[in-house]
Amino acid sequence: MKAKPEQPHVVIVGAGFGGLRAARALSGAPTRVTLIDQHNYHLFQPLLYQVSTAGMSADEIAYPVRAILRRQKNASFRLARVRAVDLAAKRLETSAGMISYDYLILAVGSVTNFFGMESLKQHAFSLKDLDEAKEIRNHLLKMFEKASHEKDPQRRKALLTFVVVGGGPTGVESAGALSELTRLALVKDYPDLDLQDVRILLLEGANRLLPAMPPDLSAFTLEALKRKKVEVRLGAIVESFNGRQVILKDGQALPAHTLIWAAGVQAHPLVASLGQPVGGQGRVRALPTLQLPDYPEVFVIGDAAYLEDPANLPLPMVAPVAMQQGDCAAKNILRHIEGEALKPFVYRDPGALATIGRNQAVAKIGGLKFRGFLAWMVWLGAHILRIIGFRNRLIVLINWAWDYFFYDRAVRLIEPNCLNEVESKISLSQEGKS
Amino acid sequence: MKAKPEQPHVVIVGAGFGGLRAARALSGAPTRVTLIDQHNYHLFQPLLYQVSTAGMSADEIAYPVRAILRRQKNASFRLARVRAVDLAAKRLETSAGMISYDYLILAVGSVTNFFGMESLKQHAFSLKDLDEAKEIRNHLLKMFEKASHEKDPQRRKALLTFVVVGGGPTGVESAGALSELTRLALVKDYPDLDLQDVRILLLEGANRLLPAMPPDLSAFTLEALKRKKVEVRLGAIVESFNGRQVILKDGQALPAHTLIWAAGVQAHPLVASLGQPVGGQGRVRALPTLQLPDYPEVFVIGDAAYLEDPANLPLPMVAPVAMQQGDCAAKNILRHIEGEALKPFVYRDPGALATIGRNQAVAKIGGLKFRGFLAWMVWLGAHILRIIGFRNRLIVLINWAWDYFFYDRAVRLIEPNCLNEVESKISLSQEGKS
Repeated sequence: MKAKPEQPHVVIVGAGFGGLRAARALSGAPTRVTLIDQHNYHLFQPLLYQVSTAGMSADEIAYPVRAILRRQKNASFRLARVRAVDLAAKRLETSAGMISYDYLILAVGSVTNFFGMESLKQHAFSLKDLDEAKEIRNHLLKMFEKASHEKDPQRRKALLTFVVVGGGPTGVESAGALSELTRLALVKDYPDLDLQDVRILLLEGANRLLPAMPPDLSAFTLEALKRKKVEVRLGAIVESFNGRQVILKDGQALPAHTLIWAAGVQAHPLVASLGQPVGGQGRVRALPTLQLPDYPEVFVIGDAAYLEDPANLPLPMVAPVAMQQGDCAAKNILRHIEGEALKPFVYRDPGALATIGRNQAVAKIGGLKFRGFLAWMVWLGAHILRIIGFRNRLIVLINWAWDYFFYDRAVRLIEPNCLNEVESKISLSQEGKS
Repeated sequence: MKAKPEQPHVVIVGAGFGGLRAARALSGAPTRVTLIDQHNYHLFQPLLYQVSTAGMSADEIAYPVRAILRRQKNASFRLARVRAVDLAAKRLETSAGMISYDYLILAVGSVTNFFGMESLKQHAFSLKDLDEAKEIRNHLLKMFEKASHEKDPQRRKALLTFVVVGGGPTGVESAGALSELTRLALVKDYPDLDLQDVRILLLEGANRLLPAMPPDLSAFTLEALKRKKVEVRLGAIVESFNGRQVILKDGQALPAHTLIWAAGVQAHPLVASLGQPVGGQGRVRALPTLQLPDYPEVFVIGDAAYLEDPANLPLPMVAPVAMQQGDCAAKNILRHIEGEALKPFVYRDPGALATIGRNQAVAKIGGLKFRGFLAWMVWLGAHILRIIGFRNRLIVLINWAWDYFFYDRAVRLIEPNCLNEVESKISLSQEGKS
């Protein structure tokens, strides 16, 4: 049904897993829906590490929001950056002007958390959006180019030492993929480089990898990474990184030009600007119904929201939570419109999956545990099923035919313009000199 | 055979069609070959307009040079920007240090020629490399986002007016693809926009399109573009463009926020720095053997070289000339090493092809002329055959399997890092205000 102006206006901020799910859950409902995002595409975050390690192209894990919402008559998209939320006046201050709402769903997600360490903020890479993933990819490849004509063996080793910090899924997946990129692909492009010079380290502060997994799967992951020649260090805490060497809390120094920070996230800064009580990682405390305590028309979901499970543990900052909360928030808004009682959010854990690279993974689904190739098949199947709507490589061929015969276009991402030729020149010439 | 240090060192500058062909022609020859380029990928330029009109992704028309040269034992690649050529000392000053040569092949290609018009240089888009193509794509999509919430009809029309300047293949192909992107794809994403507001103009200073084609094919092209709702203006000369309106020589003003300049190229500036006599478009005058008159060890090929055909007409700045000259230069270098007489370059014209968008094209091959769908099939076939080595969409599926089972990677392009988030923020917020 076409949206009517007199219908309540639901504004959703953020086109991630949660916001997108909420928008779709309101399809056909008697509401006007406006989805706002600073990018014109939805990003399939779980495969971002594949872009950073040159396994997939950016276009394959991003999909234009307008195309997703195309058939949803009551929804419209707005490309804009939300600067502030005026809870009292029920409106948003955005880069595209003021936008008023009757109901608001905040699905702004999270950003990298460097825990206030300036040196990391300046020199480390993080992996939260497409640009960062491309930056990492470009940097990795430049390190190999530099190393290929670096005479000094110590400097060459430092150029080829890649440190990943954080033993969660992102860190494990990045380290595994990095090992394969270097040892299986790049080695062919750089026949003169000695593989022994390439070092990949995975640093984790706790005493095991993948804390969300059962201990035996953590142990399996550790072994699998070792087989991939990844040096895993548990109980290793990073103190600083100046772009040339990593300093650990125990005083140890690792000469390395690359540090990928996958050790923490926190709620998007917009959340703090609300001035509402927050829980861990700066996530705003929401009622079980996902509403803000003092603003029943405002719902917070996903990484931005702090809720606890029955065991009083904070809900994890993962896609399944965001998606289920997106559904819940949409349903509760419709209940509120109908004057019905709102229902509390209940999380149904679909299990956890992490790949350790090609044909190795660990999975926990319900009571079941998988490891190795079987788990990897599960992982692959799960992701292909989830990404299929986002036109991954498996259906690019179909897209191509579709494109030509049904007049559609696949690639419609707005990336920031790449105008800093000068900078890249400079960096290139510095490479040359070093 | 593995290159030996005592073998003559052939340095090739530029990994375009000419440079790459020259490098491959020296495969197995008793020479050391170093290919230098400022990018680590070869760009399939003929399809660049597809990237700028969101028809293909950047990765699909670019391919890592190292992967192309992987099996060529006597060749190595150097990612570097050549700053100057010291002809007397036989060495290059590059961003990666000094590089000496015994033989030099300059295949540096061409850059956009704005004929000294500053306003165009500042505000117009050109289409010579991947970043420019992405810029255009991003800009086009932003114009539609802006128009989608622009209340003022005049401003909206200006936002949706796209001016392409230059009636050569690039201009014709861009205008045709632009028409299809807007009228067949974007219109679905912006249901509230009125198609009548979208204007695509193709301006050509001469009295017909595709001057390299027979007049009847030019006429056919004109009609085909009109059917695609492209307004073609012949004898229209651009005087200036301030980013808001295009001023023509006849004083006419066209309100438009987009001008794509495809009206001229000139030899890469490095050519002028040689201080050698130049012909049209700043191309250095080479001997029929492709050598520089005073420097027999230096060969110039492709867009950078000025040669005339038997009818004393300058050879066109197109890929086939560059590729054939790449072969010729390589063979002549081997002859020079053997002390044999060098052979003059003879151009074998393979014909001309230009697509006018989906299922419409014109082609001239030998005495034969094709038009319409048949010509388009010829165009498609020709390009698929030529690009197939560059892993286009048709074989992405195979790549994917390959990637997983044979440990290779498809995407290995170094783009300039996209760090100007700030700028994109600003432009975005300005959009919001306008």
